[in-house]
Amino acid sequence: MFSVTVRDHVMIAHSLRGEAFGPAQRLHGATYVVDATFSGRELDADGTVVDIGRAAEQLRAVLAPLDYRNLDEVPDFAGGNTTTEALAKVIADRLAERVRHGALGAAAQRLTRIAVTLHESHVAWAGYEREL
Amino acid sequence: MFSVTVRDHVMIAHSLRGEAFGPAQRLHGATYVVDATFSGRELDADGTVVDIGRAAEQLRAVLAPLDYRNLDEVPDFAGGNTTTEALAKVIADRLAERVRHGALGAAAQRLTRIAVTLHESHVAWAGYEREL
Amino acid sequence: MFSVTVRDHVMIAHSLRGEAFGPAQRLHGATYVVDATFSGRELDADGTVVDIGRAAEQLRAVLAPLDYRNLDEVPDFAGGNTTTEALAKVIADRLAERVRHGALGAAAQRLTRIAVTLHESHVAWAGYEREL
Amino acid sequence: MFSVTVRDHVMIAHSLRGEAFGPAQRLHGATYVVDATFSGRELDADGTVVDIGRAAEQLRAVLAPLDYRNLDEVPDFAGGNTTTEALAKVIADRLAERVRHGALGAAAQRLTRIAVTLHESHVAWAGYEREL
Amino acid sequence: MFSVTVRDHVMIAHSLRGEAFGPAQRLHGATYVVDATFSGRELDADGTVVDIGRAAEQLRAVLAPLDYRNLDEVPDFAGGNTTTEALAKVIADRLAERVRHGALGAAAQRLTRIAVTLHESHVAWAGYEREL
Amino acid sequence: MFSVTVRDHVMIAHSLRGEAFGPAQRLHGATYVVDATFSGRELDADGTVVDIGRAAEQLRAVLAPLDYRNLDEVPDFAGGNTTTEALAKVIADRLAERVRHGALGAAAQRLTRIAVTLHESHVAWAGYEREL
Repeated sequence: MFSVTVRDHVMIAHSLRGEAFGPAQRLHGATYVVDATFSGRELDADGTVVDIGRAAEQLRAVLAPLDYRNLDEVPDFAGGNTTTEALAKVIADRLAERVRHGALGAAAQRLTRIAVTLHESHVAWAGYEREL
Repeated sequence: MFSVTVRDHVMIAHSLRGEAFGPAQRLHGATYVVDATFSGRELDADGTVVDIGRAAEQLRAVLAPLDYRNLDEVPDFAGGNTTTEALAKVIADRLAERVRHGALGAAAQRLTRIAVTLHESHVAWAGYEREL
Repeated sequence: MFSVTVRDHVMIAHSLRGEAFGPAQRLHGATYVVDATFSGRELDADGTVVDIGRAAEQLRAVLAPLDYRNLDEVPDFAGGNTTTEALAKVIADRLAERVRHGALGAAAQRLTRIAVTLHESHVAWAGYEREL
Repeated sequence: MFSVTVRDHVMIAHSLRGEAFGPAQRLHGATYVVDATFSGRELDADGTVVDIGRAAEQLRAVLAPLDYRNLDEVPDFAGGNTTTEALAKVIADRLAERVRHGALGAAAQRLTRIAVTLHESHVAWAGYEREL
Repeated sequence: MFSVTVRDHVMIAHSLRGEAFGPAQRLHGATYVVDATFSGRELDADGTVVDIGRAAEQLRAVLAPLDYRNLDEVPDFAGGNTTTEALAKVIADRLAERVRHGALGAAAQRLTRIAVTLHESHVAWAGYEREL
Repeated sequence: MFSVTVRDHVMIAHSLRGEAFGPAQRLHGATYVVDATFSGRELDADGTVVDIGRAAEQLRAVLAPLDYRNLDEVPDFAGGNTTTEALAKVIADRLAERVRHGALGAAAQRLTRIAVTLHESHVAWAGYEREL
């Protein structure tokens, strides 16, 4: 199995509902350093799983509507908590859609897996991975 | 599959028995930077795999009896080598027990996997992962 | 010259006023991974510049009132931008005060310099350093 | 499942053929920081998956013929692109061969998996993993 | 003293002349992860040493003519070795010129120092710092 | 001012005397990831501050007698605490001696400064820097 990972980041505000979150129930924020990993069983004619440049562009495109936002006010997230792991799923699912629609190129149709990790600090991170 | 990882560390002394270990047969020591990853297929009502604060607390609780110790004198380790990978298993198993006994909360009962990685330097690390 | 550095972090929301900030004028947030460096010309009788445990405690004490906050609503910051470098100065100055009041121990009175660096992402950080 | 990882690096020149590569079609270069992970279901009598010292030596041995080379002139790579993921496979396959021939010791025969990751920068990496 | 640092990278080929360089006399390459630090004694009205966005843009502009190049063929470097420390000076000097010509904004005229560090691997880096 | 840094590590056991150290009074250990920085105002004819290969060799030579040792039993350290900052000074002073005796080459005689940083974990490090 081959894989390619690209890294980018977003800086967001949000609050989390539920007593379990303690002080994180207050409006606060996070830098999420986001790693997106694209995996597949075979290389294309160019010798790539996915073009790294395109992968970076598509990750940026998926992150852009979240960047420099208060996620409490983003309609897509109404009614749910924007925990690190929940955001990882949103990003992975949106990347998966882009793969399906050809945004990562024809060869990327053979990708079998996407994994997204969000580093919220030097001591905590969360992720989501799924089949394609 | 969702996952949450928390990082902590311990500073221990030990020696390793067996010619294969060369100079590491002498009493020496290590800082182990420990990453514990908790994975599950679903999020709970709060949108979490496991509460990050609780995960960090439980990792600390598991590491505390090892921290600032000479592992050669810890009865639990008598008769075996405290290699990095063997310690990773001890820590993973102890975290698994805590999950089972509810220390990470009711929702954590749905966790399916624990992985523990011990970084012994910038150029070597070892880990153990298991089902729950 | 000797130095000791300890690392901690805060997760805050804020917005920045001024056209130069572009999208960062919107309410967003950041994880700041904070490094505080204490320097001095001599070691004390214990062989330390400053006790690492105490340094970590005092850094935590200085960060606590900022953590999980919307800095736009913290009275201390009214009227100024909470840029990364401005926050670094606030933290360095508050640590300096604590050194002066003995919170880091008697030996710490000999410290000559404090430097604080705030990492806002994997590609940007800012700092402030000052004499004591 | 246990695993041990060792890290080393190579500094190479190469060019990539295919329009998708844009400026990377020109002769350029890379530092690849290489992580090799050896996994197995059981520990040997010494308490190791694989001896870390031996693992590091064998990784160095596999990297040596690539280090400080222009990969465009290495006969083994004629006719294919030396993308990061393609190189990861070459390195993983060569390590696998060494495991099979006993270079990592008798116990290493029980290894079940090798994974190799090449970090080409702080924002991109690629890997290959395979059964043994 | 305040400072702001931004990180970017280039991927280059080159060779080094002189017996001291051993195998690095052959054509090889490197990823240089480049940190540029801008320092000044005062913050401007916005509360910044230098706008981080502008700093990142100018670093990219300085790195662009080096990126994906064989430095042995870049006329600017004819007659000298493109060691890591020599390249750090080139980049620092070019950033200094841009500061002088106003590319980082009027407030940046008050900058007093630029430091550039090039990380060539996880175990070696070099830098150059200068007054403005 | 130019600088070159090389990284290596040691794994040691030790204990610290003095109530301030709390649990670190017990025999424990540490991995110290050691960065040695050599600085000078000019480059030599090869375009280097110091040969990186030689710098790495000399750092290894200085670290070797500490590696895989219980520092409590090393005669050189009798009567003093082997705190992180105290060890940084020992390593810096020994590197300085080697520079003076020509072990880093004739050009290295022009070096003006050595700085040594010991990372004891992901959240604490200490250092010592001195003139040459």
